[in-house]
Amino acid sequence: MDALGELTAALPDHVVVTDPERIEKYRWDRSQDPNTGTPVAVVRAEDAEQVQVAVRWAAAHRVPVVPRGAGSGLSGGSSAVDGGIVISLERMTAVEIDPTCQVAVVEPGAYNKDVKAAAAEQGLWYPPDPSSYEFCSIGGNVATNAGGLCCVKYGVTTDYVLGLDVVLADGSLVRLGGKRIKDVAGLSLLKLFVGSEGTLGIVTRAILRLVPAQQERSTLVATFGSPTVAAEAVVAIRSRLRPSMLELMDQPSIRAVEQHRSMGLDVDAGALLVAQSDAPGTSRTEEIALMEKACRDTGATEVFVTDDADEGEQFVQARRMVIPAVEELGALMLEDVGVPVPRLPELLAAVAEVAREQDLSIPVIAHAGDGNTHPLIVVPRDDDAAHLRALQAFDDIMHAAIRLDGTITGEHGVGRTKKSALPEQLGPDVLALNQRVKDALDPDGILNPGAIL
Amino acid sequence: MDALGELTAALPDHVVVTDPERIEKYRWDRSQDPNTGTPVAVVRAEDAEQVQVAVRWAAAHRVPVVPRGAGSGLSGGSSAVDGGIVISLERMTAVEIDPTCQVAVVEPGAYNKDVKAAAAEQGLWYPPDPSSYEFCSIGGNVATNAGGLCCVKYGVTTDYVLGLDVVLADGSLVRLGGKRIKDVAGLSLLKLFVGSEGTLGIVTRAILRLVPAQQERSTLVATFGSPTVAAEAVVAIRSRLRPSMLELMDQPSIRAVEQHRSMGLDVDAGALLVAQSDAPGTSRTEEIALMEKACRDTGATEVFVTDDADEGEQFVQARRMVIPAVEELGALMLEDVGVPVPRLPELLAAVAEVAREQDLSIPVIAHAGDGNTHPLIVVPRDDDAAHLRALQAFDDIMHAAIRLDGTITGEHGVGRTKKSALPEQLGPDVLALNQRVKDALDPDGILNPGAIL
Ligand SMILES: Cc1cc2nc3c(=O)[nH]c(=O)nc-3n(C[C@H](O)[C@H](O)[C@H](O)COP(=O)(O)OP(=O)(O)OC[C@H]3O[C@@H](n4cnc5c(N)ncnc54)[C@H](O)[C@@H]3O)c2cc1C
Ligand SMILES: Cc1cc2nc3c(=O)[nH]c(=O)nc-3n(C[C@H](O)[C@H](O)[C@H](O)COP(=O)(O)OP(=O)(O)OC[C@H]3O[C@@H](n4cnc5c(N)ncnc54)[C@H](O)[C@@H]3O)c2cc1C
Repeated sequence: MDALGELTAALPDHVVVTDPERIEKYRWDRSQDPNTGTPVAVVRAEDAEQVQVAVRWAAAHRVPVVPRGAGSGLSGGSSAVDGGIVISLERMTAVEIDPTCQVAVVEPGAYNKDVKAAAAEQGLWYPPDPSSYEFCSIGGNVATNAGGLCCVKYGVTTDYVLGLDVVLADGSLVRLGGKRIKDVAGLSLLKLFVGSEGTLGIVTRAILRLVPAQQERSTLVATFGSPTVAAEAVVAIRSRLRPSMLELMDQPSIRAVEQHRSMGLDVDAGALLVAQSDAPGTSRTEEIALMEKACRDTGATEVFVTDDADEGEQFVQARRMVIPAVEELGALMLEDVGVPVPRLPELLAAVAEVAREQDLSIPVIAHAGDGNTHPLIVVPRDDDAAHLRALQAFDDIMHAAIRLDGTITGEHGVGRTKKSALPEQLGPDVLALNQRVKDALDPDGILNPGAIL
Repeated sequence: MDALGELTAALPDHVVVTDPERIEKYRWDRSQDPNTGTPVAVVRAEDAEQVQVAVRWAAAHRVPVVPRGAGSGLSGGSSAVDGGIVISLERMTAVEIDPTCQVAVVEPGAYNKDVKAAAAEQGLWYPPDPSSYEFCSIGGNVATNAGGLCCVKYGVTTDYVLGLDVVLADGSLVRLGGKRIKDVAGLSLLKLFVGSEGTLGIVTRAILRLVPAQQERSTLVATFGSPTVAAEAVVAIRSRLRPSMLELMDQPSIRAVEQHRSMGLDVDAGALLVAQSDAPGTSRTEEIALMEKACRDTGATEVFVTDDADEGEQFVQARRMVIPAVEELGALMLEDVGVPVPRLPELLAAVAEVAREQDLSIPVIAHAGDGNTHPLIVVPRDDDAAHLRALQAFDDIMHAAIRLDGTITGEHGVGRTKKSALPEQLGPDVLALNQRVKDALDPDGILNPGAIL
């Protein structure tokens, strides 16, 4: 029996997919990484045991394993590898809420929105909210340490992970943490697996901290002459306040959304801030008033405030719609660069400069309150010269972020598409340290090879 | 020149202490670990460079290195090692606040309270607040992932660490993270060093996240017939709310405090809860009212509420005073066991059972809202039989916590005194994984040998 035969024999028929046509969609994540490979099989695991079987097989045959959640990743982290297997977690979707412990026990394939919904039924809330929350998995969120819109006040995925089951490179399963809120027994391995992008192990279960349901929100929308002026307002707000949302859209983003679906946004605005406060009672009004003042003092051309949840949600939806809307304009190279908040205006200026230099359209959205921006490099289809300029722009923007004490990735992960700039950001010593930890946990390098390192 | 001569030659005279009398106080932390060793020298480093010199020397000679902050640790984490050196960070105390980034850049020897004070000058707040905040160092806080009283709402040290400079086992210095709030470039090594108790590297600088100053607080004090009833009130409160403090003291703790210094506590109360709300505006009143109802419904004998900050702080001070007060009653073996919040009543019952069985006084205080308790085993001095029973009680309580899905340490660290129970909590696979990471980062095992693993 050949190696692949052993795998199919070890698992139920419907679990192992080898038909090239059915495999196709498992080769790509949302970055459409052109260097993606072709796996020999996709294992659509139904439980942790099947994940272990597949990994043990891969370890025995030194076959690369790419863990895959919902494939919404934006850095090629779940691009397939030639000759490897993909382990898809999409069928492991159970979500269980323990209301007295205020935790969710979740299988990795469950969508973020399903955890939110199940928690809400018990008056609880799972805060992390990537824009993709309707179509990304908890396993992917844990593996990338996903951020989102409310992180500016509520933190990122790692802040909510209390426990993980992880299948290691040799197929053994370890159980880390649990339903206890505080636990410092042993090294913080739990946190090490968060954000490891499938390179250290495969998450088969997560215990997530929940908090009481979010309070009512008020929304502020402010327009500015330019993104850098809007960014100055962000710096002013963030040096005093910690709103529950502080998002930025520049003019090309606004226009892309309006072209995609009319949302009534001001297409002449140079940039838009969408901010929310969920402070309880009258302090909500106060916080919104302070933000309004900061916006006006910085030179906002218009400020609109609403306490109506639906009306507020319209603007947040518009913000979430930017990536799909811009995807209609051409192929996308999606950045995720971040800087310390006060350097946001400089970063936005640097991006504009790169766009000019490379003669490209680069709409920008940002989780501005965290200094985390998404310049969206639009690559006109079938234009090889533009494609080369886009590659250059992609690099230039990462290097600009590093120069500004920033990072090449605030939340999407390094994956495969941002790997080339990692050495410059980390430097040789930290890079070597990453490699030492990787080698300790996955000595044969079978887990997601080519990602991060 | 002998090895020690090389060290003293490589560093300024006043930095290296070899006089046994002056060394004495660097041998112990607050656990008074009887198995502590005698170091050949103490290096009182003035900067990161001197830490590197000392570690490079230790690496060359394979000499054990014990990093030491303020020595307030409660698990023998900074007990000295025979023939080793202690690297004390007590002289590196600079604190710098960057208000627009809302971060503090801190040398490791600075006290927690100094960071709080410097932040407060800028209208900012560093939340983590171990009871020992007036006499513990930030380096120690980072190395133990210290918790405290406001953690129930604001999280623990790791949630505030944005960047670390760490001297590794070979004496090289790596710089992880920075002033950016979100950063997922590479593995989460930053979080791995937090809570590593000096076994993976020596922290020489920390960048800490600050938040806007805490709002006004109201305080609720409720008395109960017994600790288990009080714990039921905690479960009721925590299944709905996230107060900014929720602490428990049992009768022996209350009495110890009153004996130490009269604070006007009710010495007949079976247990006391001290809770605070810092919710803004009227929601503070609402939150306090909900907690009051939960206490009364569970059977509180008395509930007292105050909006007066000083009056509230009196009760918090009484709570903080328990450990020093109980230390006067005998030698202390200090537990730090935690469980999922709903199991708190069971844990307290188990501790009472152990006290009965071993015929010992075991006052209990708890960061109850997090399920984290400190049974304080009082060991009558010069009573060998009692000492043996206390050792048994120490073990029994840890095992009880493990049986209740809990942890042997919620915030103090494993150190040397809790090491024996770690294998049972983690199991062989997770323990082996800890060892692999340790070996990868410190192959010769010179960093804090004997701690954790
Ligand atoms: C329109 C749009 C908006 C987005 N907005 C945000 C945002 O606001 N914030 C944000 O952080 N991200 C955002 N993303 C990116 C993406 O949704 C997140 O990175 C998400 O966490 C990926 O989840 P996934 O299930 O799709 O993972 P995948 O794309 O399948 O995989 C992502 C990475 O995780 C690994 N992985 C997946 N599952 C597991 C597992 N169970 N065990 C181990 N490794 C695993 C993969 O190997 C890969 O490295 C957005 C994406 C889109 C398309
Ligand atoms: C009365 C009292 C109350 C307490 N209350 C709390 C509480 O509420 N919450 C809580 O979490 N703890 C509490 N503690 C325990 C203790 O104060 C904390 O563990 C604190 O974080 C230790 O800091 P330290 O500077 O004293 O560290 P030390 O005792 O000197 O060392 C502690 C550990 O950290 C390591 N370490 C120290 N500095 C560094 C460094 N720069 N780099 C690498 N490793 C280092 C040491 O090797 C050791 O393993 C309390 C202690 C007392 C005495």
